[in-house]
Amino acid sequence: MDERIRKQLDFSLELDKEKNVFRQTHLSGHGRNENDAEHAWHMAVMAYVLREYSNEPVDMLRTVIMCLIHDVVEIDVGDTYAYDDEGKTTQKYREDEAKERIFSILPEDQKEELKALFDEFEENKTPEARFAHAMDNLQPLILNHSNSGGDWREHGVTAEQVYGRQSGTKAGSEKLYAITDAILRENIEKGSLKRSGKRSED
Amino acid sequence: MDERIRKQLDFSLELDKEKNVFRQTHLSGHGRNENDAEHAWHMAVMAYVLREYSNEPVDMLRTVIMCLIHDVVEIDVGDTYAYDDEGKTTQKYREDEAKERIFSILPEDQKEELKALFDEFEENKTPEARFAHAMDNLQPLILNHSNSGGDWREHGVTAEQVYGRQSGTKAGSEKLYAITDAILRENIEKGSLKRSGKRSED
Repeated sequence: MDERIRKQLDFSLELDKEKNVFRQTHLSGHGRNENDAEHAWHMAVMAYVLREYSNEPVDMLRTVIMCLIHDVVEIDVGDTYAYDDEGKTTQKYREDEAKERIFSILPEDQKEELKALFDEFEENKTPEARFAHAMDNLQPLILNHSNSGGDWREHGVTAEQVYGRQSGTKAGSEKLYAITDAILRENIEKGSLKRSGKRSED
Repeated sequence: MDERIRKQLDFSLELDKEKNVFRQTHLSGHGRNENDAEHAWHMAVMAYVLREYSNEPVDMLRTVIMCLIHDVVEIDVGDTYAYDDEGKTTQKYREDEAKERIFSILPEDQKEELKALFDEFEENKTPEARFAHAMDNLQPLILNHSNSGGDWREHGVTAEQVYGRQSGTKAGSEKLYAITDAILRENIEKGSLKRSGKRSED
């Protein structure tokens, strides 16, 4: 087996570990916690099915691959919950080390290519990255909504925190943000998502 | 919410169920059984990383989406093990019903589009379908190889049966079939994969 293909297969096998990284989101039907590989798969199919709602034209292949690899570093660093502010302070440094280790398994040209795609997602400055981020927000939202907001309640997350994160969807898709807003309002009305103490005193 | 986007989101939520369909393949490190969503994700990333080995030029987006949706019908019918000949006789009829039900959740144009992609994979007559099939063979092979062929032993699968299935990889990628052949020979030599009684008497 030549060196190039051996590296590509080693990387392929390494990816398998992403299936053991569990997230805070639960599967629909009040199921078990979701893992990163499933989340990435779900985001990628949703990106394809919902592509007409991107604010700007996107290169669909780049968008889909970005969705598929955006959590690869979590093989080493684990999942940092979207509302874990403490974890987030050290997240960047730990993820940079993981990114270097994992993509270095690939041949040099592919290491550079996939790192660039990974960085493009993180930097969130291109239409593809913005639409992929909209999927990263919307995918757990539809699961959590189907479970009556159980993930928010479990972590005591407030409507203000959820809006803080979900508002990023607007940059990728105004249309999907309008849907997001409607879903959040419904959950607030039903009491599935609480306003913060500060706000409710207003 | 307009009818079109409601259907697209209903389909997106329905997809979630694919994460509960478990396969016979085990994760590397002698892990748990893999599910269909993880398998599809893994295949799609591998298709992208290994694309240079396709026998023919392929439209990469079509190939990746085919990988991502090729097992959707198993939400209704469950996984049929590659070497379960009895299950396979009724598989086609059951899968056709599931295909109709699941893709009908989408708006008509997308139902037709995704059904066509699903059928293209099944018919296995285009370069994209052939390369996607090579991934459908190679992905569980590298996991099972990393686990010393445990999945074959558990089911008493013979080298002849495995070659019967894996030989399909040749049509998608001669290069990846050469790798497959080397991996199978190694497993036969180590005794991880047995030749059938008939053959060993030869």
